Amino acid sequence: MAQATPHAQEYLYSKDKDNLLQRMRRIEGQARGIQKMIEEDRYCPEIIQQLTAMARAGKEVSLLLLQDHIEGCVADEIKHNHGGKMIPELIGLIRRVMRT
Amino acid sequence: MAQATPHAQEYLYSKDKDNLLQRMRRIEGQARGIQKMIEEDRYCPEIIQQLTAMARAGKEVSLLLLQDHIEGCVADEIKHNHGGKMIPELIGLIRRVMRT
Amino acid sequence: MAQATPHAQEYLYSKDKDNLLQRMRRIEGQARGIQKMIEEDRYCPEIIQQLTAMARAGKEVSLLLLQDHIEGCVADEIKHNHGGKMIPELIGLIRRVMRT
Amino acid sequence: MAQATPHAQEYLYSKDKDNLLQRMRRIEGQARGIQKMIEEDRYCPEIIQQLTAMARAGKEVSLLLLQDHIEGCVADEIKHNHGGKMIPELIGLIRRVMRT
Repeated sequence: MAQATPHAQEYLYSKDKDNLLQRMRRIEGQARGIQKMIEEDRYCPEIIQQLTAMARAGKEVSLLLLQDHIEGCVADEIKHNHGGKMIPELIGLIRRVMRT
Repeated sequence: MAQATPHAQEYLYSKDKDNLLQRMRRIEGQARGIQKMIEEDRYCPEIIQQLTAMARAGKEVSLLLLQDHIEGCVADEIKHNHGGKMIPELIGLIRRVMRT
Repeated sequence: MAQATPHAQEYLYSKDKDNLLQRMRRIEGQARGIQKMIEEDRYCPEIIQQLTAMARAGKEVSLLLLQDHIEGCVADEIKHNHGGKMIPELIGLIRRVMRT
Repeated sequence: MAQATPHAQEYLYSKDKDNLLQRMRRIEGQARGIQKMIEEDRYCPEIIQQLTAMARAGKEVSLLLLQDHIEGCVADEIKHNHGGKMIPELIGLIRRVMRT
Protein backbone atom coordinates (compact mmCIF):
# COMPACT_ATOMS: atom_id res chain seq x y z
CA MET A 1 0.00 0.00 0.00
CA ALA A 2 3.05 2.25 0.02
CA GLN A 3 2.89 2.64 -3.76
CA ALA A 4 2.53 6.09 -5.29
CA THR A 5 -0.90 7.02 -4.04
CA PRO A 6 -3.01 9.77 -5.62
CA HIS A 7 -2.82 13.36 -4.46
CA ALA A 8 -4.33 14.22 -1.14
CA GLN A 9 -6.88 16.50 -2.76
CA GLU A 10 -8.42 13.49 -4.42
CA TYR A 11 -9.23 11.99 -1.05
CA LEU A 12 -12.84 12.77 -0.69
CA TYR A 13 -13.18 11.81 2.94
CA SER A 14 -12.10 15.35 3.77
CA LYS A 15 -15.81 16.25 3.78
CA ASP A 16 -16.34 13.65 6.50
CA LYS A 17 -13.13 14.41 8.36
CA ASP A 18 -14.69 15.94 11.47
CA ASN A 19 -17.30 13.23 11.63
CA LEU A 20 -14.65 10.51 11.27
CA LEU A 21 -12.38 12.08 13.89
CA GLN A 22 -15.24 12.43 16.34
CA ARG A 23 -16.19 8.79 15.86
CA MET A 24 -12.59 7.69 16.40
CA ARG A 25 -12.31 9.78 19.58
CA ARG A 26 -15.45 8.08 20.86
CA ILE A 27 -13.93 4.67 20.06
CA GLU A 28 -10.77 5.68 21.92
CA GLY A 29 -12.98 6.56 24.88
CA GLN A 30 -14.76 3.20 24.64
CA ALA A 31 -11.37 1.42 24.71
CA ARG A 32 -10.51 3.35 27.90
CA GLY A 33 -13.90 2.59 29.44
CA ILE A 34 -13.40 -1.12 28.82
CA GLN A 35 -10.02 -0.98 30.59
CA LYS A 36 -11.76 0.53 33.57
CA MET A 37 -14.38 -2.24 33.54
CA ILE A 38 -11.64 -4.88 33.53
CA GLU A 39 -9.82 -3.15 36.38
CA GLU A 40 -13.06 -3.10 38.37
CA ASP A 41 -13.63 -6.86 37.78
CA ARG A 42 -16.92 -6.25 36.04
CA TYR A 43 -19.03 -9.14 34.83
CA CYS A 44 -17.66 -10.65 31.55
CA PRO A 45 -20.89 -10.37 29.52
CA GLU A 46 -21.12 -6.66 30.32
CA ILE A 47 -17.57 -6.11 29.11
CA ILE A 48 -18.19 -8.16 25.98
CA GLN A 49 -21.27 -6.03 25.30
CA GLN A 50 -19.07 -2.92 25.36
CA LEU A 51 -16.54 -4.60 23.09
CA THR A 52 -19.25 -5.36 20.55
CA ALA A 53 -20.49 -1.74 20.72
CA MET A 54 -16.91 -0.60 20.05
CA ALA A 55 -16.61 -3.07 17.15
CA ARG A 56 -19.85 -1.81 15.61
CA ALA A 57 -18.62 1.77 15.87
CA GLY A 58 -15.36 0.80 14.15
CA LYS A 59 -17.24 -0.92 11.35
CA GLU A 60 -19.28 2.22 10.75
CA VAL A 61 -16.04 4.19 10.32
CA SER A 62 -14.77 1.57 7.85
CA LEU A 63 -18.02 1.79 5.88
CA LEU A 64 -17.89 5.59 5.78
CA LEU A 65 -14.30 5.48 4.54
CA LEU A 66 -15.21 2.79 2.03
CA GLN A 67 -18.05 4.95 0.68
CA ASP A 68 -15.77 8.01 0.44
CA HIS A 69 -13.13 5.86 -1.25
CA ILE A 70 -15.58 4.55 -3.84
CA GLU A 71 -17.07 8.00 -4.52
CA GLY A 72 -13.59 9.50 -4.67
CA CYS A 73 -10.61 7.46 -5.83
CA VAL A 74 -12.47 4.53 -7.37
CA ALA A 75 -14.96 6.70 -9.29
CA ASP A 76 -12.08 8.91 -10.42
CA GLU A 77 -10.13 6.01 -11.81
CA ILE A 78 -13.19 4.58 -13.54
CA LYS A 79 -13.98 7.96 -15.16
CA HIS A 80 -10.45 8.42 -16.44
CA ASN A 81 -10.26 4.87 -17.66
CA HIS A 82 -6.84 4.26 -16.34
CA GLY A 83 -5.74 0.82 -15.45
CA GLY A 84 -8.40 -0.51 -13.19
CA LYS A 85 -6.28 -1.66 -10.27
CA MET A 86 -8.71 0.10 -7.95
CA ILE A 87 -11.54 -2.39 -8.27
CA PRO A 88 -9.52 -5.50 -7.33
CA GLU A 89 -8.00 -3.47 -4.48
CA LEU A 90 -11.52 -2.46 -3.42
CA ILE A 91 -12.67 -6.09 -3.44
CA GLY A 92 -9.65 -6.95 -1.29
CA LEU A 93 -10.64 -4.19 1.12
CA ILE A 94 -14.27 -5.33 1.30
CA ARG A 95 -13.07 -8.88 1.91
CA ARG A 96 -10.83 -7.63 4.72
CA VAL A 97 -13.58 -5.57 6.35
CA MET A 98 -15.92 -8.55 6.08
CA ARG A 99 -13.46 -10.91 7.72
CA THR A 100 -13.19 -8.88 10.88
CA MET B 1 -27.57 -7.47 32.58
CA ALA B 2 -27.92 -5.48 35.77
CA GLN B 3 -29.36 -8.48 37.60
CA ALA B 4 -27.69 -9.81 40.73
CA THR B 5 -24.38 -10.98 39.31
CA PRO B 6 -22.17 -13.58 41.01
CA HIS B 7 -19.38 -12.62 43.37
CA ALA B 8 -16.31 -11.01 41.89
CA GLN B 9 -14.13 -13.91 43.02
CA GLU B 10 -15.99 -16.15 40.61
CA TYR B 11 -14.83 -14.04 37.70
CA LEU B 12 -12.04 -16.11 36.37
CA TYR B 13 -10.67 -13.54 33.97
CA SER B 14 -8.61 -12.24 36.86
CA LYS B 15 -5.87 -14.62 35.71
CA ASP B 16 -5.89 -12.87 32.32
CA LYS B 17 -6.36 -9.38 33.70
CA ASP B 18 -2.92 -8.02 32.81
CA ASN B 19 -3.08 -9.57 29.38
CA LEU B 20 -6.55 -8.12 28.77
CA LEU B 21 -5.55 -4.67 30.00
CA GLN B 22 -2.46 -4.66 27.83
CA ARG B 23 -4.52 -5.61 24.79
CA MET B 24 -7.04 -2.86 25.51
CA ARG B 25 -4.28 -0.27 25.90
CA ARG B 26 -2.93 -1.33 22.52
CA ILE B 27 -6.41 -0.95 21.01
CA GLU B 28 -6.67 2.52 22.56
CA GLY B 29 -3.34 3.33 20.90
CA GLN B 30 -4.61 2.03 17.57
CA ALA B 31 -7.68 4.28 17.87
CA ARG B 32 -5.35 7.24 18.43
CA GLY B 33 -3.13 6.22 15.52
CA ILE B 34 -6.13 6.10 13.21
CA GLN B 35 -7.12 9.63 14.26
CA LYS B 36 -3.64 10.78 13.30
CA MET B 37 -3.93 9.07 9.91
CA ILE B 38 -7.25 10.83 9.25
CA GLU B 39 -5.76 14.18 10.28
CA GLU B 40 -2.86 13.59 7.88
CA ASP B 41 -5.24 12.79 5.00
CA ARG B 42 -3.83 9.33 4.55
CA TYR B 43 -5.09 7.04 1.80
CA CYS B 44 -8.46 5.45 2.71
CA PRO B 45 -7.43 1.80 2.17
CA GLU B 46 -4.50 2.25 4.56
CA ILE B 47 -6.81 3.63 7.23
CA ILE B 48 -9.32 0.84 6.67
CA GLN B 49 -6.50 -1.67 7.05
CA GLN B 50 -5.72 -0.21 10.48
CA LEU B 51 -9.41 -0.30 11.40
CA THR B 52 -9.59 -3.99 10.55
CA ALA B 53 -6.45 -4.66 12.61
CA MET B 54 -8.11 -2.87 15.54
CA ALA B 55 -11.32 -4.87 15.02
CA ARG B 56 -9.40 -8.15 15.01
CA ALA B 57 -7.64 -7.16 18.23
CA GLY B 58 -11.01 -6.37 19.83
CA LYS B 59 -12.43 -9.70 18.76
CA GLU B 60 -9.51 -11.50 20.39
CA VAL B 61 -10.32 -9.73 23.67
CA SER B 62 -13.97 -10.79 23.34
CA LEU B 63 -12.93 -14.39 22.72
CA LEU B 64 -10.58 -14.39 25.73
CA LEU B 65 -13.35 -13.03 27.93
CA LEU B 66 -15.80 -15.52 26.48
CA GLN B 67 -13.42 -18.39 27.28
CA ASP B 68 -12.88 -17.11 30.83
CA HIS B 69 -16.63 -16.68 31.21
CA ILE B 70 -17.34 -20.26 30.09
CA GLU B 71 -14.58 -21.74 32.24
CA GLY B 72 -15.70 -19.61 35.18
CA CYS B 73 -19.30 -18.56 35.61
CA VAL B 74 -20.91 -20.92 33.10
CA ALA B 75 -19.01 -24.02 34.30
CA ASP B 76 -19.77 -23.03 37.88
CA GLU B 77 -23.48 -22.82 37.24
CA ILE B 78 -23.50 -26.11 35.34
CA LYS B 79 -21.63 -27.87 38.19
CA HIS B 80 -24.00 -26.56 40.83
CA ASN B 81 -27.02 -27.37 38.75
CA HIS B 82 -28.74 -24.12 39.42
CA GLY B 83 -31.16 -22.72 37.00
CA GLY B 84 -29.41 -22.72 33.70
CA LYS B 85 -29.93 -19.12 32.67
CA MET B 86 -26.24 -18.91 31.82
CA ILE B 87 -26.39 -20.98 28.64
CA PRO B 88 -29.10 -18.95 26.90
CA GLU B 89 -27.25 -15.80 28.01
CA LEU B 90 -24.05 -17.27 26.58
CA ILE B 91 -25.73 -18.01 23.25
CA GLY B 92 -26.98 -14.42 23.21
CA LEU B 93 -23.42 -13.23 23.80
CA ILE B 94 -21.98 -15.44 21.07
CA ARG B 95 -24.67 -14.18 18.71
CA ARG B 96 -23.78 -10.59 19.59
CA VAL B 97 -20.04 -11.13 19.12
CA MET B 98 -20.72 -12.85 15.79
CA ARG B 99 -22.89 -10.00 14.54
CA THR B 100 -20.16 -7.41 14.87
CA MET C 1 -12.24 -34.08 15.15
CA ALA C 2 -12.10 -37.79 14.37
CA GLN C 3 -11.12 -38.60 17.96
CA ALA C 4 -13.24 -40.92 20.05
CA THR C 5 -16.42 -38.89 20.30
CA PRO C 6 -19.05 -39.44 23.00
CA HIS C 7 -21.97 -41.78 22.50
CA ALA C 8 -24.73 -40.68 20.17
CA GLN C 9 -27.24 -40.61 23.03
CA GLU C 10 -25.30 -37.73 24.56
CA TYR C 11 -25.95 -35.60 21.50
CA LEU C 12 -28.70 -33.40 22.67
CA TYR C 13 -29.59 -31.89 19.34
CA SER C 14 -31.85 -34.87 18.81
CA LYS C 15 -34.62 -32.77 20.38
CA ASP C 16 -34.06 -30.17 17.62
CA LYS C 17 -33.49 -32.69 14.86
CA ASP C 18 -36.67 -32.04 12.89
CA ASN C 19 -36.24 -28.30 13.24
CA LEU C 20 -32.61 -28.51 12.08
CA LEU C 21 -33.47 -30.73 9.13
CA GLN C 22 -36.28 -28.45 8.06
CA ARG C 23 -33.98 -25.44 8.19
CA MET C 24 -31.34 -27.24 6.13
CA ARG C 25 -33.92 -28.28 3.52
CA ARG C 26 -34.94 -24.64 3.25
CA ILE C 27 -31.28 -23.64 2.78
CA GLU C 28 -30.92 -26.28 0.08
CA GLY C 29 -33.96 -24.71 -1.62
CA GLN C 30 -32.41 -21.25 -1.33
CA ALA C 31 -29.23 -22.56 -3.00
CA ARG C 32 -31.35 -23.88 -5.86
CA GLY C 33 -33.30 -20.62 -6.10
CA ILE C 34 -30.06 -18.65 -6.41
CA GLN C 35 -28.92 -20.90 -9.27
CA LYS C 36 -32.16 -20.10 -11.04
CA MET C 37 -31.59 -16.36 -10.52
CA ILE C 38 -28.10 -16.63 -12.01
CA GLU C 39 -29.42 -18.59 -14.99
CA GLU C 40 -32.05 -15.91 -15.55
CA ASP C 41 -29.41 -13.12 -15.45
CA ARG C 42 -31.04 -11.42 -12.52
CA TYR C 43 -29.67 -8.17 -11.13
CA CYS C 44 -26.56 -8.76 -8.94
CA PRO C 45 -27.82 -6.94 -5.81
CA GLU C 46 -30.98 -9.09 -5.81
CA ILE C 47 -28.90 -12.27 -5.97
CA ILE C 48 -26.57 -11.01 -3.23
CA GLN C 49 -29.62 -10.30 -1.08
CA GLN C 50 -30.68 -13.95 -1.43
CA LEU C 51 -27.14 -15.09 -0.61
CA THR C 52 -27.16 -13.06 2.59
CA ALA C 53 -30.57 -14.50 3.53
CA MET C 54 -29.12 -17.98 3.00
CA ALA C 55 -26.04 -17.10 5.08
CA ARG C 56 -28.23 -15.83 7.93
CA ALA C 57 -30.25 -19.03 7.85
CA GLY C 58 -27.03 -21.08 8.01
CA LYS C 59 -25.78 -19.07 10.97
CA GLU C 60 -29.00 -19.77 12.84
CA VAL C 61 -28.44 -23.49 12.35
CA SER C 62 -24.87 -23.12 13.65
CA LEU C 63 -26.12 -21.25 16.70
CA LEU C 64 -28.79 -23.87 17.41
CA LEU C 65 -26.20 -26.63 17.17
CA LEU C 66 -23.80 -24.63 19.33
CA GLN C 67 -26.49 -24.24 22.00
CA ASP C 68 -27.33 -27.95 21.91
CA HIS C 69 -23.62 -28.76 22.06
CA ILE C 70 -23.08 -26.56 25.11
CA GLU C 71 -26.18 -27.84 26.90
CA GLY C 72 -25.25 -31.41 25.99
CA CYS C 73 -21.63 -32.45 25.56
CA VAL C 74 -19.95 -29.44 27.14
CA ALA C 75 -22.22 -29.39 30.21
CA ASP C 76 -21.78 -33.13 30.54
CA GLU C 77 -18.02 -32.90 30.57
CA ILE C 78 -18.07 -30.03 33.03
CA LYS C 79 -20.36 -31.95 35.40
CA HIS C 80 -18.20 -35.06 35.32
CA ASN C 81 -15.04 -33.07 35.73
CA HIS C 82 -13.15 -34.94 33.10
CA GLY C 83 -10.37 -33.33 31.26
CA GLY C 84 -11.74 -30.11 30.00
CA LYS C 85 -10.81 -30.36 26.34
CA MET C 86 -14.35 -29.36 25.46
CA ILE C 87 -14.03 -25.70 26.37
CA PRO C 88 -10.97 -24.96 24.20
CA GLU C 89 -12.66 -26.91 21.39
CA LEU C 90 -15.80 -24.83 21.94
CA ILE C 91 -13.82 -21.59 21.75
CA GLY C 92 -12.27 -22.84 18.50
CA LEU C 93 -15.76 -23.52 17.19
CA ILE C 94 -17.06 -20.09 18.19
CA ARG C 95 -14.03 -18.51 16.55
CA ARG C 96 -14.71 -20.48 13.37
CA VAL C 97 -18.40 -19.55 13.29
CA MET C 98 -17.47 -15.90 13.90
CA ARG C 99 -14.94 -15.85 11.07
CA THR C 100 -17.45 -16.83 8.43
CA MET D 1 -35.05 -3.57 -5.74
CA ALA D 2 -37.89 -4.10 -8.18
CA GLN D 3 -37.23 -0.72 -9.84
CA ALA D 4 -36.43 -0.52 -13.53
CA THR D 5 -33.10 -2.31 -13.60
CA PRO D 6 -30.58 -1.88 -16.42
CA HIS D 7 -30.59 -4.13 -19.46
CA ALA D 8 -29.43 -7.69 -19.02
CA GLN D 9 -26.50 -7.11 -21.34
CA GLU D 10 -25.02 -4.74 -18.81
CA TYR D 11 -24.81 -7.50 -16.24
CA LEU D 12 -21.20 -8.41 -16.42
CA TYR D 13 -21.39 -11.52 -14.30
CA SER D 14 -22.27 -13.39 -17.48
CA LYS D 15 -18.53 -14.02 -17.89
CA ASP D 16 -18.54 -15.75 -14.50
CA LYS D 17 -21.88 -17.47 -14.97
CA ASP D 18 -20.59 -21.05 -15.23
CA ASN D 19 -18.24 -20.52 -12.31
CA LEU D 20 -21.06 -19.03 -10.19
CA LEU D 21 -23.47 -21.82 -11.07
CA GLN D 22 -20.89 -24.48 -10.28
CA ARG D 23 -20.21 -22.88 -6.89
CA MET D 24 -23.93 -22.73 -6.11
CA ARG D 25 -24.41 -26.37 -7.07
CA ARG D 26 -21.59 -27.27 -4.70
CA ILE D 27 -23.28 -25.26 -1.92
CA GLU D 28 -26.54 -27.08 -2.63
CA GLY D 29 -24.60 -30.33 -2.23
CA GLN D 30 -23.11 -29.11 1.05
CA ALA D 31 -26.61 -28.32 2.34
CA ARG D 32 -27.68 -31.87 1.47
CA GLY D 33 -24.55 -33.34 3.08
CA ILE D 34 -25.29 -31.47 6.31
CA GLN D 35 -28.82 -32.89 6.36
CA LYS D 36 -27.32 -36.36 6.11
CA MET D 37 -24.96 -35.61 9.02
CA ILE D 38 -27.88 -34.48 11.17
CA GLU D 39 -29.88 -37.59 10.26
CA GLU D 40 -26.89 -39.74 11.25
CA ASP D 41 -26.55 -37.97 14.64
CA ARG D 42 -23.06 -36.80 13.88
CA TYR D 43 -21.05 -34.86 16.46
CA CYS D 44 -22.15 -31.17 16.63
CA PRO D 45 -18.70 -29.62 16.07
CA GLU D 46 -18.27 -31.64 12.88
CA ILE D 47 -21.61 -30.41 11.55
CA ILE D 48 -20.78 -26.83 12.52
CA GLN D 49 -17.48 -27.17 10.65
CA GLN D 50 -19.43 -28.10 7.49
CA LEU D 51 -21.80 -25.18 8.05
CA THR D 52 -18.88 -22.75 8.24
CA ALA D 53 -17.39 -24.25 5.06
CA MET D 54 -20.75 -23.71 3.36
CA ALA D 55 -20.91 -20.14 4.68
CA ARG D 56 -17.42 -19.38 3.37
CA ALA D 57 -18.37 -20.73 -0.04
CA GLY D 58 -21.47 -18.52 -0.06
CA LYS D 59 -19.43 -15.47 0.84
CA GLU D 60 -17.09 -16.13 -2.05
CA VAL D 61 -20.08 -16.13 -4.42
CA SER D 62 -21.25 -12.82 -2.91
CA LEU D 63 -17.79 -11.32 -3.39
CA LEU D 64 -17.60 -12.50 -7.00
CA LEU D 65 -21.01 -10.99 -7.71
CA LEU D 66 -20.03 -7.81 -5.90
CA GLN D 67 -16.88 -7.51 -8.04
CA ASP D 68 -18.85 -8.12 -11.25
CA HIS D 69 -21.44 -5.59 -10.10
CA ILE D 70 -18.81 -2.92 -9.44
CA GLU D 71 -16.96 -3.56 -12.70
CA GLY D 72 -20.26 -3.64 -14.56
CA CYS D 73 -23.24 -1.63 -13.39
CA VAL D 74 -21.48 0.66 -10.93
CA ALA D 75 -18.60 1.52 -13.29
CA ASP D 76 -21.10 2.07 -16.06
CA GLU D 77 -23.11 4.53 -14.05
CA ILE D 78 -20.00 6.38 -12.91
CA LYS D 79 -18.73 6.68 -16.50
CA HIS D 80 -22.02 8.03 -17.78
CA ASN D 81 -22.36 10.41 -14.88
CA HIS D 82 -25.98 9.61 -14.25
CA GLY D 83 -27.47 10.00 -10.90
CA GLY D 84 -25.22 8.15 -8.59
CA LYS D 85 -27.76 5.98 -6.81
CA MET D 86 -25.50 3.01 -7.40
CA ILE D 87 -22.87 3.90 -4.81
CA PRO D 88 -25.23 4.23 -1.84
CA GLU D 89 -26.92 1.01 -2.99
CA LEU D 90 -23.48 -0.63 -3.18
CA ILE D 91 -22.63 0.49 0.36
CA GLY D 92 -25.94 -0.96 1.51
CA LEU D 93 -25.02 -4.23 -0.18
CA ILE D 94 -21.54 -4.32 1.37
CA ARG D 95 -23.10 -3.61 4.75
CA ARG D 96 -25.55 -6.47 4.25
CA VAL D 97 -22.85 -8.92 3.17
CA MET D 98 -20.72 -7.87 6.15
CA ARG D 99 -23.54 -8.38 8.62
CA THR D 100 -24.01 -12.01 7.75
